[in-house]
Amino acid sequence: MKPLLQVALDNNTLSDAIKSANILGEVVDVIEAGTILCLQEGMEAVRCLRALFPNKIILADTKCADAGGTVAKNCKNAGANWMTVICSATIPTMKAALKEVDDLQVELYGDWTYEHAKQWKEAGLSQVVYHQSRDALLAGETWGKKDLDKVQGLIDMGFKVSVTGGLELETLKLFKGMDIYCFIAGRSLRDAENPREEANKWQEEIKRIWG
Amino acid sequence: MKPLLQVALDNNTLSDAIKSANILGEVVDVIEAGTILCLQEGMEAVRCLRALFPNKIILADTKCADAGGTVAKNCKNAGANWMTVICSATIPTMKAALKEVDDLQVELYGDWTYEHAKQWKEAGLSQVVYHQSRDALLAGETWGKKDLDKVQGLIDMGFKVSVTGGLELETLKLFKGMDIYCFIAGRSLRDAENPREEANKWQEEIKRIWG
Repeated sequence: MKPLLQVALDNNTLSDAIKSANILGEVVDVIEAGTILCLQEGMEAVRCLRALFPNKIILADTKCADAGGTVAKNCKNAGANWMTVICSATIPTMKAALKEVDDLQVELYGDWTYEHAKQWKEAGLSQVVYHQSRDALLAGETWGKKDLDKVQGLIDMGFKVSVTGGLELETLKLFKGMDIYCFIAGRSLRDAENPREEANKWQEEIKRIWG
Repeated sequence: MKPLLQVALDNNTLSDAIKSANILGEVVDVIEAGTILCLQEGMEAVRCLRALFPNKIILADTKCADAGGTVAKNCKNAGANWMTVICSATIPTMKAALKEVDDLQVELYGDWTYEHAKQWKEAGLSQVVYHQSRDALLAGETWGKKDLDKVQGLIDMGFKVSVTGGLELETLKLFKGMDIYCFIAGRSLRDAENPREEANKWQEEIKRIWG
């Protein structure tokens, strides 16, 4: 299956997020209310994105670590289809969240293991997000064989694996031959000279490689 | 030193949080804008708490996993003194956040190790929060020797250790003889028949044991 394209709206204000969403929303497959945006503006951000895009998949990137049921219910009520939990959340937290939303993504940070991944699978989770931390990228780390092997390992376990962190149009071909579920990009799309044109180029590149 | 008392405002709405804060704020030492509240209402919740309590320590419980600098700057600008990061955040994320706020707490969830804790210490972090997950508590887990030993291990490493999750007035004496930095309670205080009287009882019990 062709990978999806997701824009991460990690804007600092609602108006700025709406500006980005208005330009990019129709071109992408998934619209993400980023953690920064959720923490700044609360679920009003998700409500506004839902108001603008009644039929798109909207993801609330809460990186939820606890109180999964409550957080997920609040996301759902605001109009989100999907939300994220952090990999260090307990299994009961993940299960509680999964009951409320259409789907749940586990955000992979720190020292997660395949043993953990097995537990997520057994708990009914199907999506994970392989992440290059923004701060790790700033500290000079980048995508490499080590990352791609881990991503493939998760795909081989049967997960729908999304990838994110420092992706560029030129990076997509690194994943050729891999069954990526979704490419997630934030500033590479939002801060492009022409964001909509850039997003269209990403979609074309995805079609070219996986189409 | 006598442990501090912190109320976690994990309310679902700003008005409800303000109601709790108005009753409890003067009695406690630290006022926490809980994760649920931050995700629901955004940093406006922190701004309102700061407006009500110009001189209290206010903590934004963001459980930040990435973009530490941006999230911390936003918390600080809203009036928070402290914020939280999740233990699975990378060291660069923690360092970036620590630069912006007065102090940072590492929230312990999942399979953290003393090796990780050593890295946090080396990165300049001094506070950790030992957590019984709300969902784990709902699943029947509770405080025991295993938890107390881990808490003591972190104290022995030189951390200021706060404890939270399912604490009751009667639970406090479990920690007798331990150098706890802060007791964090949410619904035990907020949902008490008389929340202010209950918080006063906690403060008296803390004085009785550690005074």
